[in-house]
Amino acid sequence: MPEMRKDPVTGNWVIIATERSKRPNDFNLPGDQKKGGNCVFCYGNEDQTPPEVLGWRPEAGEPNSPGWTVRAFPNKFPAVTPDGDPVLPKSGMNQLMTAVGRHEVVVDSPDHFNSLGRVTDEQAEQALLAVAQRYNALSADPRSAYIQVFKNYGTTAGASLEHTHWQIITVPVIPEVFVKEFAGAKRYFQRKGTCIYCGIASDEIAGKERIVEVTEDFVVFAPFASRFPYELCILPLKHRSDFGKLPETEIKLLGRFIRRVVRRLERAFNYPPYNIVLHTSPPQKGYEIFHWHIEILPRLSITAGFEWGTGIFINPTSPEVAAAALREVDPDIRRD
Amino acid sequence: MPEMRKDPVTGNWVIIATERSKRPNDFNLPGDQKKGGNCVFCYGNEDQTPPEVLGWRPEAGEPNSPGWTVRAFPNKFPAVTPDGDPVLPKSGMNQLMTAVGRHEVVVDSPDHFNSLGRVTDEQAEQALLAVAQRYNALSADPRSAYIQVFKNYGTTAGASLEHTHWQIITVPVIPEVFVKEFAGAKRYFQRKGTCIYCGIASDEIAGKERIVEVTEDFVVFAPFASRFPYELCILPLKHRSDFGKLPETEIKLLGRFIRRVVRRLERAFNYPPYNIVLHTSPPQKGYEIFHWHIEILPRLSITAGFEWGTGIFINPTSPEVAAAALREVDPDIRRD
Repeated sequence: MPEMRKDPVTGNWVIIATERSKRPNDFNLPGDQKKGGNCVFCYGNEDQTPPEVLGWRPEAGEPNSPGWTVRAFPNKFPAVTPDGDPVLPKSGMNQLMTAVGRHEVVVDSPDHFNSLGRVTDEQAEQALLAVAQRYNALSADPRSAYIQVFKNYGTTAGASLEHTHWQIITVPVIPEVFVKEFAGAKRYFQRKGTCIYCGIASDEIAGKERIVEVTEDFVVFAPFASRFPYELCILPLKHRSDFGKLPETEIKLLGRFIRRVVRRLERAFNYPPYNIVLHTSPPQKGYEIFHWHIEILPRLSITAGFEWGTGIFINPTSPEVAAAALREVDPDIRRD
Repeated sequence: MPEMRKDPVTGNWVIIATERSKRPNDFNLPGDQKKGGNCVFCYGNEDQTPPEVLGWRPEAGEPNSPGWTVRAFPNKFPAVTPDGDPVLPKSGMNQLMTAVGRHEVVVDSPDHFNSLGRVTDEQAEQALLAVAQRYNALSADPRSAYIQVFKNYGTTAGASLEHTHWQIITVPVIPEVFVKEFAGAKRYFQRKGTCIYCGIASDEIAGKERIVEVTEDFVVFAPFASRFPYELCILPLKHRSDFGKLPETEIKLLGRFIRRVVRRLERAFNYPPYNIVLHTSPPQKGYEIFHWHIEILPRLSITAGFEWGTGIFINPTSPEVAAAALREVDPDIRRD
């Protein structure tokens, strides 16, 4: 029987249409093969991006030259503008303001053909350390009300360039997705006096059936009310609201952990398109009951008229089936 | 400069990245050509669908035989189940219930290769009359808390079959998209004593720049805070909350009007993928301040990590550019 399940934080409903519960081989994926060619994110083309704001070179070397392990720079085609002040008019039906913010790219591997799941542990650590450093640099701008870190992999997941990279966009407003999650966390806190995400982590670990992997620091599981087939959530086991406040050791462990999770998807689906999305508290105080986490959204299904009209997602794979399939994949095998 | 614009009803933000404002020719569309072949929605294959619940045959004829102009039947692979009672448990973190509802298909043209934009006015009228009749039949079920009418056209818009059709899914909960729109309409009503959608219609008509077409009964415009390039909204000029209560004359006019709007998109983009989504009040009383409307969402862009993380859509086409481009298209030209 198809089930309606309610997200415990947001209250959003999904439909898990279990009759058509799909296992990895049931998805007909195009097989997003990389073409290569002249890539602006590759060694030797550093002059084709805006000047770097971060470039880690083990052998030293000039900025904007090859030899880096990770490199960050402003997006050449930013969705927001670094200039101006976001000022909202006080009245009127149609409110608008300049989209003031920063839009950066973090190239997390110099190897065009590598994938996030196959990099070394050291590279995975460096990548997340670079993302966190840029996150903190951008959060220092008082106009950054919220900072969105994300990765698009594969053309059908919105990646316009195939060389692996993260993006960071700051916006001058608190976005509705955070507002809704925070409201859910606050309702729970007012009722129970504890963090809802801490509760979910311990419930999921105890229940086992939706767990993909758990370590001393993190758990990754298929959420009870998954909107997408093989959707995953990474929760840190320590309660922290702000990704930017993580100590270096935890950032490194997170880098390794994300690599393992992505490797499971790469092996199960032969490099599917996916989005990785950070959810964290805004840099301002007052959000300490929030619990940062990461969503990994394989793009195996299409959001269509029913979803746009209702906000209710129809998911053909139960999270229990998804978790079981991904548990079986060995993320330590890096070769294809 | 990129702009942030706030939806006047929901309060959701979008970013209109005007520097990259795209006109129809800037979109690289795959050209979703129909393949034909053995189609279960075509004449002669009526036995391959569940038995029809509606079939209009001008020359009379048996149910589930050819000769129909429009035909409706339960979806063979429903996302919801017609059996059971939706009962929500009172407590617990992870709430679920059976997804009780009805899932129907309305095939709105017998011609496999025809498109919605090219059908005759009579066919366009019949199609909407059939949708409205099934809407009302399904709303009689007391378990239908909400009824979602939608059309997916093109594979990248989620259509699994290429023969033109509408779908109707009933759900046992009031979905979050409606909840949010109704809350916005209610806030406005409490402040001003009038309908926000009536206000938007008259403001847009007065402002002209986002209007695509206006008749005595309907207006179609590119919303101020469009999430998607070439997103359109059809608003009826008469205030009515419930699509199911429309008199026959208005349903017919709506059928003709939708055809004209879709024809503009077909000609501007050479048959782009799109979703059409009805927004209406639930069948229950208490929602009279709501104002039914229709969203038409061309699928020209990809929803990626930033959108999933924030709920803020980055739209590369300003609605003013979109409206101007579509105003220029003559929807009366039906041949290619």
